[in-house]
Amino acid sequence: MKNNLSQRAIVRLTQYHTILRDYFKKNIKNITSSQISKLLEIDETQVRKDIKSINCKGKCKVGYEVFDLKKIIEDVLDYKVIKKAYVIGAGNLGTALSKYSKFNDYGLEICALFDIDKSKIGNKIGDKYVYNLNSIKSHIDKTGINIAILTTPNKVAQEVADFLVKSGIKYIWNFAPTILCVPENVHVWHENLIGSFLQFCAIENIS
Amino acid sequence: MKNNLSQRAIVRLTQYHTILRDYFKKNIKNITSSQISKLLEIDETQVRKDIKSINCKGKCKVGYEVFDLKKIIEDVLDYKVIKKAYVIGAGNLGTALSKYSKFNDYGLEICALFDIDKSKIGNKIGDKYVYNLNSIKSHIDKTGINIAILTTPNKVAQEVADFLVKSGIKYIWNFAPTILCVPENVHVWHENLIGSFLQFCAIENIS
Repeated sequence: MKNNLSQRAIVRLTQYHTILRDYFKKNIKNITSSQISKLLEIDETQVRKDIKSINCKGKCKVGYEVFDLKKIIEDVLDYKVIKKAYVIGAGNLGTALSKYSKFNDYGLEICALFDIDKSKIGNKIGDKYVYNLNSIKSHIDKTGINIAILTTPNKVAQEVADFLVKSGIKYIWNFAPTILCVPENVHVWHENLIGSFLQFCAIENIS
Repeated sequence: MKNNLSQRAIVRLTQYHTILRDYFKKNIKNITSSQISKLLEIDETQVRKDIKSINCKGKCKVGYEVFDLKKIIEDVLDYKVIKKAYVIGAGNLGTALSKYSKFNDYGLEICALFDIDKSKIGNKIGDKYVYNLNSIKSHIDKTGINIAILTTPNKVAQEVADFLVKSGIKYIWNFAPTILCVPENVHVWHENLIGSFLQFCAIENIS
């Protein structure tokens, strides 16, 4: 199902889900496309189209049932399928991501952190251990985890990525602001925080 | 010019720029759409279309001049226009963003952090001071800065956002995983890290 959705639609559905979670916690039973549209500053027709595309039906004037719509989005986007990952780099960003509670709600489980800094190795961040990066292959061999979240400094990112690939990592979510070269059977998702900010500036005409 | 570009095109142009910066540093003079396409796993026709849309011309077999294309993207996306902002919340994420070197290259200057934690107020993170959040209005009145990067815990995000709006903030880049309600003359950009990860999973079919 989710393979039929565009990248933008997937992002919007996760945003709708955030609102639905808030409503659900507040015990509000219904939500209209107009309410979603206003909160996210998205065109209402787009909201209706997205929700229709995942086969959820609303009622005139009442809107959608919060619980149902929330559940459908979770099913469509595989939130309940646990995806385990390692964070590479136990600096500020790695620590922030490890503690980011929302990941768990969406099926992303960060199992451990890896670093080369001896003052960090052996520590715990929340309930997760920081291991020596040199030992990652033995962890991967044991756990089968093949997703790495890369938060190292820019200048070592490529070298670390090469080492991860050799150790068995197949998917890299890259927060280092550089484009990584990897073999064809390995996939990189470049997180582009500055791109996101520049979108904001362009859309709102900030200058 | 940038107002004619789609949000996705803006994101892609920032990604091309990251590659161009790498090439420029390595003193490589030319780049082809095929090289960009392979590094980013984006369709080559799309790359050519994007670059044509900003009036940059390549040469057959040689490709684009790295310096020229880099410069054109910088002009189109206003990288040289400095945008000053405050980071709200001096925790791990706030600290990571304050230290994120790439922001400066793209015209985003983080001028200070604000927190309510007395153990953090008065400290420096890199070369930036952490001030008491309660004093932000007097800072805004002095500097005219109206962009806030919100990295507080989820449960206080709305309350802090209300306070920021009262204090004169007009643009909020929100990293807290909740949808904020703000007046119509204030603009929020919801950073959706988990949405980004779920895109990655959907595209690469990770499950």
